[in-house]
Amino acid sequence: MNIDMIRAAADRAKGHVRRTPLLNSPFLDEIAGRRVWVKPECLQHTGSFKFRGAWSALSALPSAQRAKGVIAYSSGNHAQGVALAAKMHGAPAVIVMPEDSPRLKIANTRAYGAEVVLYDRANESREEIGAALAEERGLTLIKPYDEPQVIAGQGTTGLEIAQQAAEAGIEEAQVIVCCGGGGLTSGIALALEGEAPGFRVRPAEPEGFDDAARSLVSGQIERNASALGSICDAIVTPAPGELTFPIMQRLVGPGLVVRDDEALQAMGHAFNRLKLVAEPGGAVALAAALFRGGEIDGDDVIVTISGGNVDADMFARALQTLG
Amino acid sequence: MNIDMIRAAADRAKGHVRRTPLLNSPFLDEIAGRRVWVKPECLQHTGSFKFRGAWSALSALPSAQRAKGVIAYSSGNHAQGVALAAKMHGAPAVIVMPEDSPRLKIANTRAYGAEVVLYDRANESREEIGAALAEERGLTLIKPYDEPQVIAGQGTTGLEIAQQAAEAGIEEAQVIVCCGGGGLTSGIALALEGEAPGFRVRPAEPEGFDDAARSLVSGQIERNASALGSICDAIVTPAPGELTFPIMQRLVGPGLVVRDDEALQAMGHAFNRLKLVAEPGGAVALAAALFRGGEIDGDDVIVTISGGNVDADMFARALQTLG
Repeated sequence: MNIDMIRAAADRAKGHVRRTPLLNSPFLDEIAGRRVWVKPECLQHTGSFKFRGAWSALSALPSAQRAKGVIAYSSGNHAQGVALAAKMHGAPAVIVMPEDSPRLKIANTRAYGAEVVLYDRANESREEIGAALAEERGLTLIKPYDEPQVIAGQGTTGLEIAQQAAEAGIEEAQVIVCCGGGGLTSGIALALEGEAPGFRVRPAEPEGFDDAARSLVSGQIERNASALGSICDAIVTPAPGELTFPIMQRLVGPGLVVRDDEALQAMGHAFNRLKLVAEPGGAVALAAALFRGGEIDGDDVIVTISGGNVDADMFARALQTLG
Repeated sequence: MNIDMIRAAADRAKGHVRRTPLLNSPFLDEIAGRRVWVKPECLQHTGSFKFRGAWSALSALPSAQRAKGVIAYSSGNHAQGVALAAKMHGAPAVIVMPEDSPRLKIANTRAYGAEVVLYDRANESREEIGAALAEERGLTLIKPYDEPQVIAGQGTTGLEIAQQAAEAGIEEAQVIVCCGGGGLTSGIALALEGEAPGFRVRPAEPEGFDDAARSLVSGQIERNASALGSICDAIVTPAPGELTFPIMQRLVGPGLVVRDDEALQAMGHAFNRLKLVAEPGGAVALAAALFRGGEIDGDDVIVTISGGNVDADMFARALQTLG
């Protein structure tokens, strides 16, 4: 896993993955007490950075293997990313989702061209169902973060940040990244290590689901007590990955932790000042920049908005914080 | 007024005006029955395309004249554009606003560094107040659309559309533009005349305020019965401009007209599928693409989202259309 893989992923992505802009607002700067730069991956295809990793993984497969199809387990952004990346490659995609997933997510994943296979979370194992399907049809499993080509794809975000920050004259900055399994965090860190050595990556997580922050402190992979119960569900995973954590340990930290109400407030500010729709998990890095300034150094902070797949009810809650 | 002025405005804008992306979504394509491409000027500085024209006008002034300052009459997006463009040039700006303007708009305009002069709409004339201030301080008036350098600045949107559409392989398209006084519409039309002759600009307006559409039919400048009463207030003006209308008459039309409820629905789709915040007036072009397909030709339609300065209450109404 190195920056050459990220550069190769960026080459394969040209013309297919969106180059998202780097945005700012004097109003956000005022709240944060420093310049705040926002990388809005909510504007990526399928509404999250996950499309980058999915495109990278699909485009790296030998064409005969890709033609047989891919499979992923996910009820969220990774599923949509894999579904659309497969469709754009003309490859079949099977997404294994819990049968109690929100109907809108199932419909969206199908609309991106995937076959959705539902399972009963209480009585069935998605791994067994997936393994049987993969065996039967010769499908390739695309893991959500512990997969080198997925990390390389997420890392293309970092290459763009390095270039856009240089254009804005930023030589030193902390880069706060919304962190789940660590694919985006470790990918950006690897890219910036090579391209912008004055930058330091800081993972951001919701309170109570700060496995990355705790793992970085203890030096070993720590798990969350539960994977359920946060409004920031898009970035909640059981623990950092086996591949992502060593990269994070070498290059990243310390972690930043924000409350759910701060994530909602950050969504309100993104609406008001950037005209962007952020999902709660996608807003934790901005929330850290706005409300955890005492834990951040320097004149410039760069944050990811990792996704914008939020329903109207939750977004209405964020709007209410603007009162 | 010609494309060379637009190209010169684009040169002056480099590094200061945002190059907004060109976005799409398979879900919007499905509703429209053709490919829909969105130019989101809500992501521009100050949340609307008006910053382009303001930057162009400020940057075109001789530096000694600029240093004395500029003045604008506006309670909306033009005011914010002029205020920030002046601040970034280190020039004073005076904005004359009705004293019953929403406090948030007054506060935002001040936050961008402008001096706000309030007047009583019933008993005072903004022109008299402005003329007195301009005379006293040597300020230059920046008109919102009937001003060549403002039209040139708005036209830079068209240069970007031409380039981005070419990259996407689009050779023929109708380009629907949210239309108020016609600065953006005529500027884009001039740019595309030179850069993308297969493109045709169509102005979009709210029902009851379709002065541009009616003027294009009658061949002379027609006025709206009222300038008040539309939720699409950001793009409602009394009539097309003296400079903009001849350009529109030569290059643009026929007009498209949408209802307020369709603009709200389009805002909901922009939220859901593009992760963008559109204001009602900024959503009329997208609404036309989605709901007036029978009046549009071709496989590709390009629409502007001209701004995103909408308050939480109005946005909540748009979210309710998603039901």
